Amino acid sequence: MNIHTTGFASAHEVFSAKDAKFGHNIRAYYEHARENDISMTHTLVNPQVDRSQPVEKQPKDLAAKIVKETDEGIVIKGARMVATLAVYANDLMVMPSNYLQNSEDAMPYAFGFNVPVGTPGLRVICRPSTVHRDPGSWLDNPLSSRFDETDAMIIFDNVLVPWERVFIHRDPEMCNGIFMRTQAMPQIMHQFCTKNLAKAEFMMALAFTMVRSTNIDKFQHVQEKLTELITFTEFVRSCIIASEAQAVETPFGTVAPNDMPLWTVRMMFPKMFVRMCEIIQLLGAGGLAGVPSYAEFDGPRREDIETYYQAANTDSRSRVKIFRLAYDVAVSSFSGRQQLYERFYTGDPVRLSGTLYDLYPKNEHVERITTMLDDLEGRVNDHLSTPPFLPV
Amino acid sequence: MNIHTTGFASAHEVFSAKDAKFGHNIRAYYEHARENDISMTHTLVNPQVDRSQPVEKQPKDLAAKIVKETDEGIVIKGARMVATLAVYANDLMVMPSNYLQNSEDAMPYAFGFNVPVGTPGLRVICRPSTVHRDPGSWLDNPLSSRFDETDAMIIFDNVLVPWERVFIHRDPEMCNGIFMRTQAMPQIMHQFCTKNLAKAEFMMALAFTMVRSTNIDKFQHVQEKLTELITFTEFVRSCIIASEAQAVETPFGTVAPNDMPLWTVRMMFPKMFVRMCEIIQLLGAGGLAGVPSYAEFDGPRREDIETYYQAANTDSRSRVKIFRLAYDVAVSSFSGRQQLYERFYTGDPVRLSGTLYDLYPKNEHVERITTMLDDLEGRVNDHLSTPPFLPV
Amino acid sequence: MNIHTTGFASAHEVFSAKDAKFGHNIRAYYEHARENDISMTHTLVNPQVDRSQPVEKQPKDLAAKIVKETDEGIVIKGARMVATLAVYANDLMVMPSNYLQNSEDAMPYAFGFNVPVGTPGLRVICRPSTVHRDPGSWLDNPLSSRFDETDAMIIFDNVLVPWERVFIHRDPEMCNGIFMRTQAMPQIMHQFCTKNLAKAEFMMALAFTMVRSTNIDKFQHVQEKLTELITFTEFVRSCIIASEAQAVETPFGTVAPNDMPLWTVRMMFPKMFVRMCEIIQLLGAGGLAGVPSYAEFDGPRREDIETYYQAANTDSRSRVKIFRLAYDVAVSSFSGRQQLYERFYTGDPVRLSGTLYDLYPKNEHVERITTMLDDLEGRVNDHLSTPPFLPV
Amino acid sequence: MNIHTTGFASAHEVFSAKDAKFGHNIRAYYEHARENDISMTHTLVNPQVDRSQPVEKQPKDLAAKIVKETDEGIVIKGARMVATLAVYANDLMVMPSNYLQNSEDAMPYAFGFNVPVGTPGLRVICRPSTVHRDPGSWLDNPLSSRFDETDAMIIFDNVLVPWERVFIHRDPEMCNGIFMRTQAMPQIMHQFCTKNLAKAEFMMALAFTMVRSTNIDKFQHVQEKLTELITFTEFVRSCIIASEAQAVETPFGTVAPNDMPLWTVRMMFPKMFVRMCEIIQLLGAGGLAGVPSYAEFDGPRREDIETYYQAANTDSRSRVKIFRLAYDVAVSSFSGRQQLYERFYTGDPVRLSGTLYDLYPKNEHVERITTMLDDLEGRVNDHLSTPPFLPV
Repeated sequence: MNIHTTGFASAHEVFSAKDAKFGHNIRAYYEHARENDISMTHTLVNPQVDRSQPVEKQPKDLAAKIVKETDEGIVIKGARMVATLAVYANDLMVMPSNYLQNSEDAMPYAFGFNVPVGTPGLRVICRPSTVHRDPGSWLDNPLSSRFDETDAMIIFDNVLVPWERVFIHRDPEMCNGIFMRTQAMPQIMHQFCTKNLAKAEFMMALAFTMVRSTNIDKFQHVQEKLTELITFTEFVRSCIIASEAQAVETPFGTVAPNDMPLWTVRMMFPKMFVRMCEIIQLLGAGGLAGVPSYAEFDGPRREDIETYYQAANTDSRSRVKIFRLAYDVAVSSFSGRQQLYERFYTGDPVRLSGTLYDLYPKNEHVERITTMLDDLEGRVNDHLSTPPFLPV
Repeated sequence: MNIHTTGFASAHEVFSAKDAKFGHNIRAYYEHARENDISMTHTLVNPQVDRSQPVEKQPKDLAAKIVKETDEGIVIKGARMVATLAVYANDLMVMPSNYLQNSEDAMPYAFGFNVPVGTPGLRVICRPSTVHRDPGSWLDNPLSSRFDETDAMIIFDNVLVPWERVFIHRDPEMCNGIFMRTQAMPQIMHQFCTKNLAKAEFMMALAFTMVRSTNIDKFQHVQEKLTELITFTEFVRSCIIASEAQAVETPFGTVAPNDMPLWTVRMMFPKMFVRMCEIIQLLGAGGLAGVPSYAEFDGPRREDIETYYQAANTDSRSRVKIFRLAYDVAVSSFSGRQQLYERFYTGDPVRLSGTLYDLYPKNEHVERITTMLDDLEGRVNDHLSTPPFLPV
Repeated sequence: MNIHTTGFASAHEVFSAKDAKFGHNIRAYYEHARENDISMTHTLVNPQVDRSQPVEKQPKDLAAKIVKETDEGIVIKGARMVATLAVYANDLMVMPSNYLQNSEDAMPYAFGFNVPVGTPGLRVICRPSTVHRDPGSWLDNPLSSRFDETDAMIIFDNVLVPWERVFIHRDPEMCNGIFMRTQAMPQIMHQFCTKNLAKAEFMMALAFTMVRSTNIDKFQHVQEKLTELITFTEFVRSCIIASEAQAVETPFGTVAPNDMPLWTVRMMFPKMFVRMCEIIQLLGAGGLAGVPSYAEFDGPRREDIETYYQAANTDSRSRVKIFRLAYDVAVSSFSGRQQLYERFYTGDPVRLSGTLYDLYPKNEHVERITTMLDDLEGRVNDHLSTPPFLPV
Repeated sequence: MNIHTTGFASAHEVFSAKDAKFGHNIRAYYEHARENDISMTHTLVNPQVDRSQPVEKQPKDLAAKIVKETDEGIVIKGARMVATLAVYANDLMVMPSNYLQNSEDAMPYAFGFNVPVGTPGLRVICRPSTVHRDPGSWLDNPLSSRFDETDAMIIFDNVLVPWERVFIHRDPEMCNGIFMRTQAMPQIMHQFCTKNLAKAEFMMALAFTMVRSTNIDKFQHVQEKLTELITFTEFVRSCIIASEAQAVETPFGTVAPNDMPLWTVRMMFPKMFVRMCEIIQLLGAGGLAGVPSYAEFDGPRREDIETYYQAANTDSRSRVKIFRLAYDVAVSSFSGRQQLYERFYTGDPVRLSGTLYDLYPKNEHVERITTMLDDLEGRVNDHLSTPPFLPV
């Protein structure tokens, strides 16, 4: 059993298919990251220019590509979009994502490598942050004031990537399906399902807390919404457990979680998360629209606030804290960006459907149907005198 | 035809049922507002304490109520929640909304009046604003930097309302259904449907603009989403036209739009609006997550921005402008608050269902079914030899 | 004003573009149909062989096509699928539907004509009927026993269509968009929206009748479902009224209903109808599963039936009648086929989206967005000192 | 480990709480059923009369109740609705389902027992069957011609139930929650989830078979629908695996599957099943509407059928077989009744939500939220100079 590596590194032989140095590189980088406690982000997607055309046929050639090879390494020019948390990371992993044609034109875009974020020529363009830096706002925006994961575009201005950090080089065939062939994908999916479970539990817990404060959990339509949140949580948990209970040995001597329960979460969770935010809104109702700043408790209207924001089962401070959290989670920019993130971070949902459909075993299922029909046809054509399934 | 007044004022005789002064008051206030170009907001909902109990049985007595009558007027103590735009308004209209028991206990909560926002004892507790005051942010947040409609709680600290501004006094019977009986409701609904049409058209126009920039409107699944936006817009427009085409004369000598097309919008639009925001997110995808500040065009990375945010059919500045607008409209706190607003501003959707079901004429429909069945039964029981509807 | 013709006939000049005889033919056939009270069906769709390929590139050439021209007319060989009610009709209208390439290969499939159903060589292959011929079953299956609209495939075995019944001949350009160019489409849509209104009213009336019988219309979740049915009905009604209120003059001297309200119904009604059936199921619940035959009232268990199928507000006979009708409408094969019909009779919903998106005016909307953004940009860049929309 | 019994029998001590004979009876009946290979059905629900009132307050007293005790046993009069497959069963299990008041009035309805279906005075009123008895129809209606599970009302006309078959006697407290307290519920849920998995796999397999025949599985929107079916199947499978992987020991010496994954299926599967039927309709489209009888292959139009019902990848016979199966599964009365069954067989979905909400552990979740907020409040109020989560 290979207990020292996981993901790409454990499958280094896949990268070595054409040249052993690439397999060596990925494994060496893994050890480097492990020993030096490297914080890493990644960027996988080309900029949106003409989304109806493949990368090598864009009207404006903006995607990161190999423009030169030197003795020291490869030189990259162009952009990749959506690197999350890049400003906090040591290193940046740049791997393939969208399907590439196996053509000469596509080769410059067919690479995989890793560079320190501080490499000369590498620039990070962030979106405006939602972080509120005034500590007072921690209770007004308990999440967005502290946990904004800034999204950024990465610009490679003739960045030199040394050969020892190159894992794939001008190789569309290697790029396509690399996450599956290396069994990195089930590991990634297990990680994000764990994240999904934490999110689902949190949203459910928040809803429980809200409804108790204003005493609405006796209404049937409220219970229906709360029960949706329960089933979302338990759905994710069940799939994680199932993926572990039926873990499989990989060709690389590692164990991977069974992928199909995790695919199920991958496909179904985005809509569930959006629905969770919606349910928090529906439970909070007008009470969410007008919740004041926690800072008012130190202001001239403290007495009003303490009196008039009480709820049936909670004092005014607790109610404001709970509802500010709910606002932050389900109404704020932070919430909107979370919804956007959940919809897209594992890939375009339309294309993901195609991927899952392709990899799912279908023949055995088609065969069961045709066998059943042929068998029935045979019996009908034999004019069986005693239909075997019917009562007399 | 009564062409000088609309809404409550045109139906002043309704308010006069028990005492002519109330009808006089509402009409006089209407004229005052008209002549002085009064900006007005309103507040209709009691604070959320125990949402499973009526106002007169709350464990904590926080709702605005009449605590005293004097020669000069009535004295109000307590709170009302969700007055939108209160800080911009001259006057505040305080009218009934939720159903009231016709009991002695409920009477102090059974009123309707109007006061200037600046009346002594009247306080306004706003939620934190989303307004960004830096003009540079106008292009980063084109709507939220300019159009936040601050929601607030109104606190009446023994506010004296002069008798001439009182329209309903300790009268639950008058309160219940006042918007329907006065035919104010169809007018209100026509107004908000017009607002909905503007919103729907805007979201559709924005989506058209986005998909052109990145050339995705050739995909079937994109066209399906755009077509949803078209049907939402045309749905609202059709209902407004129908309400006007079948306008009805009221008992008060005015004309009111037909209410049923407007009820249809009232019930269906909230989900449509949320779906509009979702479609904008789905069309923008990763491109929405990383859109930079417009201010970057004046910054040190101007060249990068100008190069790498180009899209197929648009330059970088236009693309950033379009996508910042989309972010503001479909991802930001402003968007979240808009969604919350649309869900609740005309009332709790579960209770609205009950209201519509109650007022809808049902007997004639039930009769058509029972008559049809009885007729068919008669024919079957007569053993009609030639079934009239069947081909031979 | 052209008051003598409607639809295709009123736009006969469109058909005459290349040869005046075709315009003459369509008008003459219209008069024939009018004077002789012709019952007509139609067939528009080619058989499903390879649904990913256009008609002229099918691996098996089964679609109806022109195989020969003679002095007498054109000769058609091949099939069209889904002619509804063909066995009851005098004549069959065979017109284009799917988009055709403007190529030599596609020309044999580019036609429009009409033939009597009884023409030699024309064969009708029906699906099995759901009609129950026993009159006793009229109350068990009030609709399916009487109103099954048999769907059929039409086979043309070298059918000769005389020239005077040919309206389009080897003309893909004429075929594409013929329903729009002739303004037949708004007429067709107005007709089917009227049908939809009748259906929606009927389903709503049935639901009202059911809930009264078992006294469940006091539950909020039941009222929500009933209110959905109300809004579906009033939505369709509003769109019809709007299409009439804004009727337009056509280039042919006729008046056509405004098409956009009708398109709205066309796109949204199918899902509404399926939901109507679902609501009937949800309201009936277990009571629908076990409703006995009406014939039991004449059988040995009459007394049991009369006793145990009573409901709170109805006797046993009425309850069985109501619930048998509900079963027929929302559970039976008749219901399933109705749902299938509503989903597809106006065309494949994915392709319809594309059609509506194409025809909808988009430029003016895009312009409003870009103008608004450019205007805002101008003001920001001018460093306007007093932002005009902000309160101080 | 108790390996000889499961379900109620393994928890016989629960039934013995007030009188040991009831525990003895349930265990003895279990052994009888096991040794004699008894086919059993059950009936749990009272007739729908006034669904807004509990059983003991119905305006018409139709529900089965104890009318007398004798030395031999209890005498039951009244009805229960929805016993499925009663005509095929040896014995009928009559157990409590809806919540009962703990009052004198409710006691006659508070029982549990078992009787042979052939007991004098017990009558079975079936709904009309969908079975087609002509073997030729097996290929036209492959499921409905063979597998209709007839639903029935059971009428007890003073049926004597011997004491040794009585398990609960005038005991509302025992009735309420009996399925949970005995741990029968997780066993029941595991059984029906297994059934759900078989159904989901079958629907998915059928869809795979359909799309191949007409070559539509290259369309993105088709792949999306197929992928939905995949995730439905794998969702159910994952939950079953998770329930087994985390099985729990019961107080009765047996092992029960973990209940929460199974509850998740219970709540979410009904909508999934309805969606499966919808997807089959959407994939079949017009091709489903006109599929002819398989018997036509032996009829005068055999040649037409063989020619014109071919599809891209299948001959005519196979295509008709596949599409007749699809029609039976997704359009027919059999399909409608399956949909109705899935919605309701485990209980009214609105009430089930209440049950799940009640039993789910909520306090620990509420505590996590309040602890988190209190902790944050403490840190804010301490004016922590270095916010620990923010980057510098």
